[in-house]
Amino acid sequence: MISREELIRVIDQLRPFFKPKSIAVIGASHNKEAPGHIIFKNLIDNKRKGLLRAEVYGINIRGGELYSQRLYRSIKEVPGEVEHVVIAIPARFVPAVMRECGEKGVRVATVISGGFSEVGNVELERELTKVARAFNIRVIGPNGLGIYDSFSGVDTLFIPAYKETDEGLKLNMPRPKQGSISFLSQSGALGDAVLDYMWGEKIGVSKFVSWGNKIDVDEKELLLYLLEDETTRVIMMYIEAFKENARSIIEIGKEVAKKKPIIVLKGGVTEAGARATYSHTASLAGNRRIYEAALRKMGAVIATNIQELVDMAKALAYQPPAKGNRVGIVTNGGGPGIVMADLAEKYGLEVPALSKSTIDVFKKYVSDGLIPAIATFSNPIDISGTGTDESYAAATEILLSDPHIDLVIVLALHHPPALTKDLPRKLIEVIERHDKPVVVMDMGSTEMSDWVRRQFDERKIPTYPLPWRAVIAAKALIDYGIWLNNMGAFDDYIKNYKLFISKS
Amino acid sequence: MISREELIRVIDQLRPFFKPKSIAVIGASHNKEAPGHIIFKNLIDNKRKGLLRAEVYGINIRGGELYSQRLYRSIKEVPGEVEHVVIAIPARFVPAVMRECGEKGVRVATVISGGFSEVGNVELERELTKVARAFNIRVIGPNGLGIYDSFSGVDTLFIPAYKETDEGLKLNMPRPKQGSISFLSQSGALGDAVLDYMWGEKIGVSKFVSWGNKIDVDEKELLLYLLEDETTRVIMMYIEAFKENARSIIEIGKEVAKKKPIIVLKGGVTEAGARATYSHTASLAGNRRIYEAALRKMGAVIATNIQELVDMAKALAYQPPAKGNRVGIVTNGGGPGIVMADLAEKYGLEVPALSKSTIDVFKKYVSDGLIPAIATFSNPIDISGTGTDESYAAATEILLSDPHIDLVIVLALHHPPALTKDLPRKLIEVIERHDKPVVVMDMGSTEMSDWVRRQFDERKIPTYPLPWRAVIAAKALIDYGIWLNNMGAFDDYIKNYKLFISKS
Repeated sequence: MISREELIRVIDQLRPFFKPKSIAVIGASHNKEAPGHIIFKNLIDNKRKGLLRAEVYGINIRGGELYSQRLYRSIKEVPGEVEHVVIAIPARFVPAVMRECGEKGVRVATVISGGFSEVGNVELERELTKVARAFNIRVIGPNGLGIYDSFSGVDTLFIPAYKETDEGLKLNMPRPKQGSISFLSQSGALGDAVLDYMWGEKIGVSKFVSWGNKIDVDEKELLLYLLEDETTRVIMMYIEAFKENARSIIEIGKEVAKKKPIIVLKGGVTEAGARATYSHTASLAGNRRIYEAALRKMGAVIATNIQELVDMAKALAYQPPAKGNRVGIVTNGGGPGIVMADLAEKYGLEVPALSKSTIDVFKKYVSDGLIPAIATFSNPIDISGTGTDESYAAATEILLSDPHIDLVIVLALHHPPALTKDLPRKLIEVIERHDKPVVVMDMGSTEMSDWVRRQFDERKIPTYPLPWRAVIAAKALIDYGIWLNNMGAFDDYIKNYKLFISKS
Repeated sequence: MISREELIRVIDQLRPFFKPKSIAVIGASHNKEAPGHIIFKNLIDNKRKGLLRAEVYGINIRGGELYSQRLYRSIKEVPGEVEHVVIAIPARFVPAVMRECGEKGVRVATVISGGFSEVGNVELERELTKVARAFNIRVIGPNGLGIYDSFSGVDTLFIPAYKETDEGLKLNMPRPKQGSISFLSQSGALGDAVLDYMWGEKIGVSKFVSWGNKIDVDEKELLLYLLEDETTRVIMMYIEAFKENARSIIEIGKEVAKKKPIIVLKGGVTEAGARATYSHTASLAGNRRIYEAALRKMGAVIATNIQELVDMAKALAYQPPAKGNRVGIVTNGGGPGIVMADLAEKYGLEVPALSKSTIDVFKKYVSDGLIPAIATFSNPIDISGTGTDESYAAATEILLSDPHIDLVIVLALHHPPALTKDLPRKLIEVIERHDKPVVVMDMGSTEMSDWVRRQFDERKIPTYPLPWRAVIAAKALIDYGIWLNNMGAFDDYIKNYKLFISKS
């Protein structure tokens, strides 16, 4: 169990990372490619947009001015209080600067600078740790990307926003829109690539944290902070290895997972991966089975690649979990329906034949002319290429009403002439009348498939462009729901979920 | 073995489907949504663009004019010869019309009309078959999407090109660009969805065939035709079940696969999938293991979902196969490298530790300052976020030169400031100096990652936006290469491959 005191302590100590009243960038260089320059610009821009509410200060040993802001020669020159410093200067200067921060009364530091234990400078890292502890400064880093918070405007991502190409400037590092997924990543490079990918998938992010060498703030505290963070609904994690405190992370994680789904991608699960992990962060990746058992015990939904990580997070952010394993599928294309059914079974979901009473309703709709006579109902229900918007809605209604079905996958294949622009609206009406989780698949890359998918996504009915991705999404909703049920935490979760949805 | 006579017969008989001298659409309706209307328009458009060289005729029982072309009341009214008819009229009229086609001397018919055995009209289908046989008319269909040939302009896809939405007209059914992949699909709905998807992935297609109820021309003959088709380099297949002639398809397939890779997605491999297959095409999906063994014997590369099908086809269309299983990985991001190594091992590829002599070259480059001192070389080689364009090229060169590595995966993560627009060009130079297959991964959805990937794709170095997709691509090159080697067909294949590349 998580003690109330512990929770209050963590929130109090970590709050300035994400919602500082004042923030200073140490190393606010004039060189446009320098990390400190990029970070200072991020913050100034966000402040001017009205997103970042904090006072922003730039520190540059040579003083001067940047983006019409005075640069201070040291943190001590700053007139007001500074809660959060971002440090982006050569490693050898960091301990001394950290001491100045301590004397100034700084509460938290995001240390971007690399050049510590990851290149063998263990002693320097130890010194840095000592100074920070002495002054009670909480530290994220060093050697990480730091923090991106879409709601507060704290943004220490120092990747250039644009890059020059033969065809002019190209967007190089986008920021995903605001959303309810937070992402904790042990790897910075994986982190920025995933943010770039999520931007393209139009999936929103609340907070992103890359902690690099992790000399202080760890996964456990970050999980606790996110547990209480009202803009975070789902937590994604990329981890290579837990260090000494694996047991306590698992314990805390389990409590967090009862309230907010945690989806984990574990790096270093094979021999080659483990060898690379050791090279990367000098950490032992550990035995895959032990890790997997521990993560499952913690209630983590386990992703085996980045696409799964993001697809699962989207599903859990948008839909309630499923009470059981039984999937109903509705399609208008025989082949895609078969492929979907195959994949569902392959990933351990049950695609049961429909009950007699459900088939009776189906037959009635056929005799009423609502569903074409050529339609089949073996689960998948296949309304066929001649099925109309109304057929689709009726078939979906049948599956949503069937008490033997826990989750419905709708293949809204938009191509046939019989389907019109009203299909998404009609399906959404049916889906929103029920509490059952739904995942939608429409294949294709054209404007029309983008448009169809967007209609659902905007209503928080998650869509995917390929059958296997929809199945993975369904599996996440099912695995998590079954774990919640086993923990006796399902009903509470649904209550919180509905509260969150009603607020957003 | 395939007899020369058989091959000549097939090419002679099937040629008018793909390269007709004349083509008529029976059912060229004035209703813009009618399949016959859409197909007639496709052909007229392609003729006006200069793509389709054939004479095009429209047949409509009421006569009139469409797109400034006279419509004939029957096929018999057409003044010249007609090699290929596309039939898109209600099922009950098809046998009689087929008889007229026979009397006219038509050689091949693509029957789009549905309403035969798939809805229980077995007798009507039998009659149709009998008439076609009596006149030696070869038939594709009925109840299929028919043919799309990007080179000849034959296009019977009757899906509306655009659809109305609340935001105006949206492209609904694109045509992929010209390319070297042909696609045979037992499912029409899966076929058009895959074409839509390939369009978005910017992967070119040569021919697409959807044969519906398959009363005549089958997979075997289509494979033979594609074997000799000079614009086809790779064959993708979606199959639910082979009917009576499974053995001969496997035999022919094996001969074809020695010259052109065949990638197969099999539908109905699980209980739910098999049940749906039976509902869909009344065919028994058969035992998964038996099918898989047969397909492997035939040399097919087996895909387990649509994304794999397309990703594998792209790899095999662009790169030579690998001689063995040993993969070298180069990255500038620790985390993504670890994830890639994990996935490679998970999918059965070997990621061996590098040999001493290779590490010696690596160390020399480090001491020369070409590769940063922080770089690691456990395979993945990780040049780190500070690695430059030159570091990347040097590291890739090391792996390509290592005789213990059969295939190289390059993670060209574009985000860090140290990398410039010259990275793709420098990597391409190195890659093109070697004969070894290479797959490139750059993660992200922004302009910059699109730009980076496009540079490689245009040089036929296949790129993927996610680690697991690059691994699947590598696996296809490896599985196919090992099978070719076992068949003693590797060197011949490479000769043909180089000839094809030099022509295209």
